[in-house]
Amino acid sequence: MKEKDRRIAEGALFTDQYQLTMTQLYFHMGMHEKEAQFDQFFRYYPDYGLHKAGFCINAGLEWLVNWMEGVHFNDDEIALLSSQTRRNGKPLFSDEFLSWLKKDLSFQRLNLRSIPEGRVVHPNTPLAVVQGPLGIAQILETSLLNHLNYPTLVATKAARIRESGRGQLMLEFGLRRAHGVGGNAGARAALIGGADFSSNVGISHLLGFSPKGTHAHSMIQAFIANGQSELDAFRAYADLYPDDCLLLVDTLDTLNSGIPNAIQVFEELRKKGHKPVGIRLDSGDLAYLSIQAAKMLNQAGFPEASIVLSNNLDELVIWQIVTQIQQEASRYGLDAEQLLSRLVYGVGTRLITSHGGSSLGGVYKLVALKDGGDWQPAIKISEVPEKTPSPGYKQLWRIYDQRGKATADLLTLEDEDPDQMDKLVLRHPNERAKRRTLAKAEISEIELLLEDVIKDGRRVYEFPSIENMRNIRDADIARLDPGIRRIMNPHIYHVSLSQRLFDLKEELINSVKNENRI
Amino acid sequence: MKEKDRRIAEGALFTDQYQLTMTQLYFHMGMHEKEAQFDQFFRYYPDYGLHKAGFCINAGLEWLVNWMEGVHFNDDEIALLSSQTRRNGKPLFSDEFLSWLKKDLSFQRLNLRSIPEGRVVHPNTPLAVVQGPLGIAQILETSLLNHLNYPTLVATKAARIRESGRGQLMLEFGLRRAHGVGGNAGARAALIGGADFSSNVGISHLLGFSPKGTHAHSMIQAFIANGQSELDAFRAYADLYPDDCLLLVDTLDTLNSGIPNAIQVFEELRKKGHKPVGIRLDSGDLAYLSIQAAKMLNQAGFPEASIVLSNNLDELVIWQIVTQIQQEASRYGLDAEQLLSRLVYGVGTRLITSHGGSSLGGVYKLVALKDGGDWQPAIKISEVPEKTPSPGYKQLWRIYDQRGKATADLLTLEDEDPDQMDKLVLRHPNERAKRRTLAKAEISEIELLLEDVIKDGRRVYEFPSIENMRNIRDADIARLDPGIRRIMNPHIYHVSLSQRLFDLKEELINSVKNENRI
Repeated sequence: MKEKDRRIAEGALFTDQYQLTMTQLYFHMGMHEKEAQFDQFFRYYPDYGLHKAGFCINAGLEWLVNWMEGVHFNDDEIALLSSQTRRNGKPLFSDEFLSWLKKDLSFQRLNLRSIPEGRVVHPNTPLAVVQGPLGIAQILETSLLNHLNYPTLVATKAARIRESGRGQLMLEFGLRRAHGVGGNAGARAALIGGADFSSNVGISHLLGFSPKGTHAHSMIQAFIANGQSELDAFRAYADLYPDDCLLLVDTLDTLNSGIPNAIQVFEELRKKGHKPVGIRLDSGDLAYLSIQAAKMLNQAGFPEASIVLSNNLDELVIWQIVTQIQQEASRYGLDAEQLLSRLVYGVGTRLITSHGGSSLGGVYKLVALKDGGDWQPAIKISEVPEKTPSPGYKQLWRIYDQRGKATADLLTLEDEDPDQMDKLVLRHPNERAKRRTLAKAEISEIELLLEDVIKDGRRVYEFPSIENMRNIRDADIARLDPGIRRIMNPHIYHVSLSQRLFDLKEELINSVKNENRI
Repeated sequence: MKEKDRRIAEGALFTDQYQLTMTQLYFHMGMHEKEAQFDQFFRYYPDYGLHKAGFCINAGLEWLVNWMEGVHFNDDEIALLSSQTRRNGKPLFSDEFLSWLKKDLSFQRLNLRSIPEGRVVHPNTPLAVVQGPLGIAQILETSLLNHLNYPTLVATKAARIRESGRGQLMLEFGLRRAHGVGGNAGARAALIGGADFSSNVGISHLLGFSPKGTHAHSMIQAFIANGQSELDAFRAYADLYPDDCLLLVDTLDTLNSGIPNAIQVFEELRKKGHKPVGIRLDSGDLAYLSIQAAKMLNQAGFPEASIVLSNNLDELVIWQIVTQIQQEASRYGLDAEQLLSRLVYGVGTRLITSHGGSSLGGVYKLVALKDGGDWQPAIKISEVPEKTPSPGYKQLWRIYDQRGKATADLLTLEDEDPDQMDKLVLRHPNERAKRRTLAKAEISEIELLLEDVIKDGRRVYEFPSIENMRNIRDADIARLDPGIRRIMNPHIYHVSLSQRLFDLKEELINSVKNENRI
């Protein structure tokens, strides 16, 4: 896309048409400046087909806020909107509405509370809460969801892959399979959720990371087409990068050509006083080849050389590789744990596209509107009971048990304080029969999860560094029950309503049904 | 992302680190300006799990070329690369290499041939062919694949959804579930492949389309929270948009509230001389509700009102809806065909993320290098025979049979001309036993598929409008055998090598194996 076009396509018009037609209606009804609250949440963990996440890692907030601060309806946007016509040929948008967009619409007029990036999050709890003029909050919907859904999806996948790789070094390689420039958002989310580094040069620099990568098959092919050999290519590479020499060994034949040639070059490096970094395997049976490579490298005196694995890896493939190595390494005279500790995972396509579950169904729902001084809860009666969101202005708490493990996320009314309650009654959001009571003695900590981000027109939140987000993530994951962390068929984490919120939701569903005679 | 950061992240550093480390090696070996050829192709049709595409729609070229023309290694990029260090603390990139990047690297120095956007394409045929200095062509890899893989994936999904919706109006709604700003590339690809319009405001304007959309559930909720009703909301909407009135009817209860209220408002519009547009159904059993809605609208005298369907639609869901309506409409006294012809499909998440098959495995492989005046074919001997790409400089032809249907895509050496041959021998790319011979009389047309796009530093290609791309697409799809067009379990289209190319490939695999003693 051309630069000027890009500014249009990624600015205030980075939204869905219906946000504008609806808001014009609010404007003409005098409702556009009424204070509203929208909650952003997802209803289900990502479902990858054969397996399903037990928790998510929140991501995307900082770039959303940057977008909100930088975007306005300028002359270019207004000119395009003025050009839209109705079926009868007249302009779709009125001049009055367009001048309100231009003059009064600033996303910084919205208050935003959110759960920080890197935190463990669960379904049906507000991850971002927007309060402010109805018309402005409405127009924000599409961009807010775009900025939050995908990063949370990828951060979650990255966390799962990291879990299954048992915390070994993990590299994000997926730019070529990403949705265009969205690959940058994907790389950032991967770095928050579980990847240590990315191959993406630009975004790595901007986020303060060294981009990672060595060479591809094409380098070997170029040398061969140039009348030289794989060994010549390895040797040239080692000459240029003697202390950073990691060689891709599967261009011709991994066991009969690639690894022997790599070892020969490593020996030459060693003689000159350099320490080779390792090899990369990108095809074939990676568990079997890892074992064989480790054996050959050990015999040649390179027991510390890394073995980087790549080729459509994800949490299940890695899990299988780890399991197979644990079962078989000893048969080849190797210590499985030692081998596993030298593995590095390069993860591309299946991370950046969240293979198996390629979208997070995050939504942004109107939950309350202020009438006079009072919040009026808004509710949608859907055919599916679990799709009915919790109404009104709420607080979100995380309850830790005596082991220090998170045992439930609890939604309460704004004026409720679980710390002041003798015991906690946790109601299932829509199944009347399911409830749980926690005595004070069973609880070690109660934590508020939402933080103020934009308040009264100003950013009041300091974004943590990605390093900090990772610390937050690791601490949160460590406080999950192992059953929740399980890659396959995890336990279901409790997300509960307080008794008062539960009663309010029931009351509202009934009253809306009565008033609308349904 | 902030504006200055964005320029960095989407410019010349929108690539993988290994492209730079490899190219530095070429530079120091004096190979970086040697002329090379890379082919971009995909190996397999998208596989959606239970079903698999039988053809793809090519997309992404225009934005790739815009990127290639706009991008350089400027001072900012060079400064970031200078800051990269080796394990020994010294700079990773040499000053000589960095000044070559800055001074001599222009992607317009590459010749680019490509298949136009909108055309039907198949696996293992070059969709883009890049010739030029090895170092420059190498660095292009990541961005080229990023710009072409995702759009082709989405255009293909859009074509499938359009097929299963039998060409009814189809709207792209997926921005909120896209990979960040990559949603714009997705919307464009959807418009090329099968969507008629998009809800995405900015990109629609830039591409010359009216963005589409009416209102969401939140509008009804806002009115209710404001002390009014669904009927009040519909009436207010109809007052503001009397000739563009399309109402979402499932906020409370589709059959008992939404549709009756919509009909009441439509009757009021009719009295004032306006024609209502229709309704939208976004939940529940869409086939059953379509039938009921059609019945109610017909009885009220609105047989032409559109029924827009949305909610996780894709080609299979639409196919089921169409089938169910065909089977059941008559039981309710409706003509199935008449009902199907008033349906409109709003497709979001599952289109923009290519649900079920969320990536296209497009690759970009070195196939030849010029040594002196001669092209030396490059080849990678992989463990998997079908992964071995066809070597060298090739022509790609499409062969049409006597019915005018495309019967094979044929790769030949550059100097071969199938038009001059008495009969065509079509060899399977890797199975020796499979071959097919076409007599001249069996062939109605032979067409060259690749067109010059950038040549000798200049763009020599005029990009077609999206309208034109759609004409190209429709013509190509019409010339496919119905078995190839089938949504489930399609026939396999023939992609073949000429006898001479087949022989060359065999020869090369053997000679590389011998030289490398494998």
